[in-house]
Amino acid sequence: MRKRRAAAAAKSAGVDGMLVTHLPDVRYLCGFTGSNGALVLVGGRAMLFTDGRYTGQAKAEAVGTKVVIATKPAVVAACEWMAAASVRRCGFDAANTTVAGLETMRKALRSGASAARARRGMFVAVGPLVARMREVKDAEEIARMRKAARVGCELFEGMLTYLEAGLTEAQVAATLEYAARLAGAEGMSFDTIVASGVRSALPHGRATGAKLPKRGFVTLDFGVILDGYCSDMTRTVHMGKAMPGERDVYHSVLEAQEAAVAAVAPGVTAGEVDEAARSVLRRVKLDKYFSHSTGHGVGLEIHEGPRLAAKQKQVLEQGMVITIEPGVYMPGRFGLRIEDMVLVTAKGGEVLTPSVKAWIEL
Amino acid sequence: MRKRRAAAAAKSAGVDGMLVTHLPDVRYLCGFTGSNGALVLVGGRAMLFTDGRYTGQAKAEAVGTKVVIATKPAVVAACEWMAAASVRRCGFDAANTTVAGLETMRKALRSGASAARARRGMFVAVGPLVARMREVKDAEEIARMRKAARVGCELFEGMLTYLEAGLTEAQVAATLEYAARLAGAEGMSFDTIVASGVRSALPHGRATGAKLPKRGFVTLDFGVILDGYCSDMTRTVHMGKAMPGERDVYHSVLEAQEAAVAAVAPGVTAGEVDEAARSVLRRVKLDKYFSHSTGHGVGLEIHEGPRLAAKQKQVLEQGMVITIEPGVYMPGRFGLRIEDMVLVTAKGGEVLTPSVKAWIEL
Repeated sequence: MRKRRAAAAAKSAGVDGMLVTHLPDVRYLCGFTGSNGALVLVGGRAMLFTDGRYTGQAKAEAVGTKVVIATKPAVVAACEWMAAASVRRCGFDAANTTVAGLETMRKALRSGASAARARRGMFVAVGPLVARMREVKDAEEIARMRKAARVGCELFEGMLTYLEAGLTEAQVAATLEYAARLAGAEGMSFDTIVASGVRSALPHGRATGAKLPKRGFVTLDFGVILDGYCSDMTRTVHMGKAMPGERDVYHSVLEAQEAAVAAVAPGVTAGEVDEAARSVLRRVKLDKYFSHSTGHGVGLEIHEGPRLAAKQKQVLEQGMVITIEPGVYMPGRFGLRIEDMVLVTAKGGEVLTPSVKAWIEL
Repeated sequence: MRKRRAAAAAKSAGVDGMLVTHLPDVRYLCGFTGSNGALVLVGGRAMLFTDGRYTGQAKAEAVGTKVVIATKPAVVAACEWMAAASVRRCGFDAANTTVAGLETMRKALRSGASAARARRGMFVAVGPLVARMREVKDAEEIARMRKAARVGCELFEGMLTYLEAGLTEAQVAATLEYAARLAGAEGMSFDTIVASGVRSALPHGRATGAKLPKRGFVTLDFGVILDGYCSDMTRTVHMGKAMPGERDVYHSVLEAQEAAVAAVAPGVTAGEVDEAARSVLRRVKLDKYFSHSTGHGVGLEIHEGPRLAAKQKQVLEQGMVITIEPGVYMPGRFGLRIEDMVLVTAKGGEVLTPSVKAWIEL
C-alpha cells in the first residue's frame, strides 16, 4: 500500500523508477529494519537490496518485497539492477543522498547498462516524496505513537517520586533510561536531556555530573523508541521553593505552550502555531529568551516535518504528529521548557502526553 | 593545531577556504559539541556558525575559534560570510554533504556575493580531508579511547555475575546501559546488541524480549561514549554446557580473531588483516558463515575509516584505532562474534579491551 502510493507519487514526478536509500524511508515503505538497505520501486515491483547479515531478517520483515542479498554495496547492486531493467529516469531524494553517494549511483547506473544500449538512465531529484508521506501518520502508526507517548508519561511520573537534591543529572538519566528499557523501549529517541539549576538555561543541556540543586529548576527532555516510533516530551519541575520570578516565567511558558496547542488544527499553518506561542512570550517581554522554534514533526525519526517555526507556510494536516515545545532561557540564571506531542485531529489537536504541566515543587 | 592542519590540507587540495558541516568533524577541529554548527576555515582564520541555543556553549567549547550566532541556518550564514570574504574556491566533503545541502550552499555563496563582483565563488569536493585526519588518533584521543575501552571491559565483567537463564535480552541491555551511565558514559556508541540462543545467529540482533536460554550462546556487542569517544567490544559466552560443535566453532572464531589482531601493524593493508581472520575460518570451512567485514576504525564516531574488509588496500598507520571482530553465524542454529578494539602501535597492535576471550560457561 505505502509502496504503491510512493510509486504513484514517483510517477507523478515524472520518473519511471525510484531508489530509496534513507533507512527510515526504507523501513516505512517495506518494513525492513536493518542498517543497510536500498529499495527500488519500478513499475509495480519492489526490490530490497541488502547484505548477507540480513538474509533471514529481510525476508521476515519485508513481506511482499523481493529481497536480494548483494555482495556489492546494496546501493550499487540496486543501480545495476535498474540499469539492466532499462530504467531511464530514476528518482532519488536529494535531501538524503550525499554528493558522493549520487556519484556512486550514477556510475553504477552507467556501468550496469549494456554498452550496446544507446540511451542510459539518469537520476532525477524528485523531492522528499517519502518524507512527505511520512508526515501524515496512518492508524497503525498513531496507535504505536500513542503507546510510545504513554510510556514516556509513565516514566516522567516515576521520576517525580525519585528526583531529589544531590542526585547527579547522569544518575537521573541512567534511572530514566533503565526504566524505559524495562518498559519495553528499544532505545531512547535522542540523548536524554537533564538540565538542572543554572544549566536549565541551556536549551540542550545533556545530562552531566552536575548535582540537582536544593532550589532550582530541573528540565527533563526525553523520548523512547517503541516499535520503531519515537516519543518526545519535556517537563520542568522545581526543586524546593521558587525564587523570585521563577514562578511567573514558568506560567508564561505554560501559557505559551497551551496557546500553541490550542492553535493546532488542520488547515492552520505551522507559522501560525509558532506565533501563538511566541506572541504570549512577546507580551511579557520574554520572547527574546525563546531562542528556538516551537516544534517539529515526529515519527520513525525524532525530527521530521513539518517544522513549526516563525513564518513557516506549511499547512497542518489531520494525522500529523508534532511537538509543541516553547521555552525560555535566561543565561546564567535559569530556563525551562514544556513540551507535548500533539496529534492533529479533524477538530484540532489531541495531546498524546497528558502528564501534569502545572507548577511542581519537589 | 588541528584547524591549521586541516587548512593546510585544504590548501594542498587547491581551495582557498573550507566549509566543514559534519558535526563530528566540527567537534574534532574546534571542540564544539552542539547539534548545529558550520565551521569555516579561511586563510588562517576559523569561524564557527551556530544558533542562539548554543551561545554560551559554543564560546566555552570552541576556544580559539570566532563564534557567530546566526539567525539564518548556520550553513547559509557561513556561505554568505565566505562570499563577503571573497572566497573563490571553497572545499567541502562530498561524503558528508547531501545533494540538497550543496544546492543550498551554492545559492548562499552566490547570493552573498555582491552583484557588482564579476567572479563568484564555487564549491569544490576535496575528499574526506578531516575524516582522514581523524583516522590517526593523537595522544589525547588515545587516552580517552583507552578509558572508554576500559569502562567497556568493566561493564562486561560485571555482566558475568549477572547473566542467567530467564532474563530477557532487553533486561540485560537495560542493566548494562544503566551501569554504563553510572560509570560516566554520555551514552552508548550504538544500539546494544544482546543476541541469545538461536538469535545469536543474527549478526545484528538488537536486544528483544527473548529470554536467555538454559543452554546456548549469548553475544553482547556494545560500546560506551566517554568524553565524546566511542568504545566497541563483543564477547560471546555460553549459558550451560556446550552442545556438539559449539565449542569447536567458538575456538575457530577465537583463533581467527587472534590471527587478525596479530596481523595488525603499521604498513600492513586493511585487506591483509581481514584475510588473516578469513583464512583461519576458510581452513575449517566456516568462512561462508562469516558474512561481514573484519572491522572498522572507531573514534568520535562508531564507524570511521579504515574499513577492514577483503582486498582493502588502505595501509594501517600508527595511531589508528580499529576493531577486529570476526564472527560465524549459522542460520537457525547459533552464531558468535568476538571483538576487540586495537590500537596500531609502532610495533604492532595493542588490544585496548583485554577482557577474557577464553570459552566461558555460565
